[in-house]
Amino acid sequence: MCFQIENGFELLNGEKSGARRGRLTTTHGTIETPVFMPVGTSANVKGVLPDRLLQLEAQIILSNTFHLYLRPGHDRVKSFGGLHAFMNWKRPILTDSGGFQVFSLSRINKISDEGVEFSSPIDGSKHFFTPEKTVEIQEALGSDIAMVFDECADPNADESYIRESVNRTFKWAKQFKQAHTRPDQMVFGIIQGGTSEYFRKESARQITSIPFDGYAIGGLSVGEPFDITIGTLEVTTPHMPVDKPRYLMGVGTPEMIFNSVERGVDMFDCVLPTRSARHATLYTREGKIRIKGARYKDDPNPVDEQCDCYTCQRFSRGYLNHLYNKKEITAMILGSIHNLRFLTKMMGDIRKSIEEGRFREFKEQFFSLYR
Amino acid sequence: MCFQIENGFELLNGEKSGARRGRLTTTHGTIETPVFMPVGTSANVKGVLPDRLLQLEAQIILSNTFHLYLRPGHDRVKSFGGLHAFMNWKRPILTDSGGFQVFSLSRINKISDEGVEFSSPIDGSKHFFTPEKTVEIQEALGSDIAMVFDECADPNADESYIRESVNRTFKWAKQFKQAHTRPDQMVFGIIQGGTSEYFRKESARQITSIPFDGYAIGGLSVGEPFDITIGTLEVTTPHMPVDKPRYLMGVGTPEMIFNSVERGVDMFDCVLPTRSARHATLYTREGKIRIKGARYKDDPNPVDEQCDCYTCQRFSRGYLNHLYNKKEITAMILGSIHNLRFLTKMMGDIRKSIEEGRFREFKEQFFSLYR
Repeated sequence: MCFQIENGFELLNGEKSGARRGRLTTTHGTIETPVFMPVGTSANVKGVLPDRLLQLEAQIILSNTFHLYLRPGHDRVKSFGGLHAFMNWKRPILTDSGGFQVFSLSRINKISDEGVEFSSPIDGSKHFFTPEKTVEIQEALGSDIAMVFDECADPNADESYIRESVNRTFKWAKQFKQAHTRPDQMVFGIIQGGTSEYFRKESARQITSIPFDGYAIGGLSVGEPFDITIGTLEVTTPHMPVDKPRYLMGVGTPEMIFNSVERGVDMFDCVLPTRSARHATLYTREGKIRIKGARYKDDPNPVDEQCDCYTCQRFSRGYLNHLYNKKEITAMILGSIHNLRFLTKMMGDIRKSIEEGRFREFKEQFFSLYR
Repeated sequence: MCFQIENGFELLNGEKSGARRGRLTTTHGTIETPVFMPVGTSANVKGVLPDRLLQLEAQIILSNTFHLYLRPGHDRVKSFGGLHAFMNWKRPILTDSGGFQVFSLSRINKISDEGVEFSSPIDGSKHFFTPEKTVEIQEALGSDIAMVFDECADPNADESYIRESVNRTFKWAKQFKQAHTRPDQMVFGIIQGGTSEYFRKESARQITSIPFDGYAIGGLSVGEPFDITIGTLEVTTPHMPVDKPRYLMGVGTPEMIFNSVERGVDMFDCVLPTRSARHATLYTREGKIRIKGARYKDDPNPVDEQCDCYTCQRFSRGYLNHLYNKKEITAMILGSIHNLRFLTKMMGDIRKSIEEGRFREFKEQFFSLYR
């Protein structure tokens, strides 16, 4: 099966496993899916310059409405020619709507159907986000994909609150779609509903009734156990259109990625690869290692022997052990490059395995080593 | 005048200004002088990876005996194939002897003619450096240029102490030369003597009586006023052989570099370009700027319009202002690349001006803008 679909998403290849091989065309280029998006919260991927991101085959990066609105301000970014020019990144950018950050990083003063009043974590100043405001911000940033403003409710909230929140997310999604004007910017809706099968279905029904360019599953990166996350995903994806990209927000461990790809997810993002690298945890085919450990002091091998990244091609575990123990910035740079490449390479291998109809086999092979 | 001299130093071109254009050939390549050496204290230039250093035309970097002896240990570096292999730097490396660091960074327990007993600033453990020990360390590291172990005395010490210290530095220099075995490693002597004309002359006479591959002027980067430093330099260089490279240790401001080149100095190193960059001070042709300042928030220009570095070719002052104010690692990387390139470019321009016999003119032109 191979068919062209509107809005730039083309499903190249499905599998009985459920895994999908696709291609998403945006204003700044084409993205092969499934894809992992490195996170560049404040208009930069911490420690990894644009040319390195190209080198490690990052196809698209994620940046953040909430952070950029607060600093340096979306109007300022616009005056620099938009986010692509500001940060010198010529490939696609997806901007998160700020929904998740408003609820996780700021003090909420008031949530109503109109929007959210919150205090800036920087200086305590008051701000008000509405769906229309987050359209304005993201259109100013000029990302290739804008995310609707949603409410990311506490999954432990009671049923009546989840209901209210799901309905509000639907209302906001309609308003967002209505207010959106940039023809060169795609918009993705976000399905919420906590960990309730009922509300996930309900939210999926609501959000997918709006003709967005893609659909995301939000609220599943807030620390629930693996089984709950996968269970929630499993009851949600069957209610999403097959012909649009599906994005599982904030999720990026190899375990979650493989299991989500198997359930038909196309896009992922996560701060973990770079955050872990800054804290000396590096990915290898055999699992994560704590590179500061004494066992690596004399290790002449690269972090991962099969990795083709700048770091693994040039430096030993022993050298990284030294740099991390000395708390050198250089350690964080080298570690971040490696961890990002580990994931982009893994995604490339996943794509290839889907093309060749052997995704499950590859998954099994991957986890025979990785733990 | 152009003549070939032993030990790899070739003086291409002198000038009545006193400035010299030379070429130093080492095991890992040739260095055009006058040269600025970026500092990679702990086997890395903080935040700037080897390929970037090549890109910004770093010809040689400096690394540190004292730091590498303590961590990760010189034997460990040797087991990784030496410092070049350990840090993946294929061009020349100069290693400081540890003299300056023993006296500035550790608690000294005892100085005698035998050597220095000191406590590690990391864990308080006791160590003993002798000239022979610092030969052993530097031969293990495998740098292209090793520096003799010297005593970097407090310039405010009384005359009898300076005398003792100068004589000890001479004694240690002879022992160092005697103990040194690696034929692929050059050795530079270090002239001390505080700010006393008498003792500088005396030290120069002593140290240059030993046939080293080059001669350094130590003890002049410890915070004396500009005039004192230049005055001391002025009474020292006339007592140094013209046919050997001259290295002013730890000095790297544009003011000091131009004035020292004019007094016949060939080599410089300084942590300032990278340290300043980490603290948001960037070099421009018009002087240093504090990039975090509000005046740069909306500035679409590069840090320096005439700079060809990775940073200036891609990013605005406004973007750097944003990154620095957000305390992003990326800011430190971009700033360090720029500051180092600013100096390597300045040195290239200095070399060209000497070749063309217009060094003084160039100096005047440089400082008509730079302040």
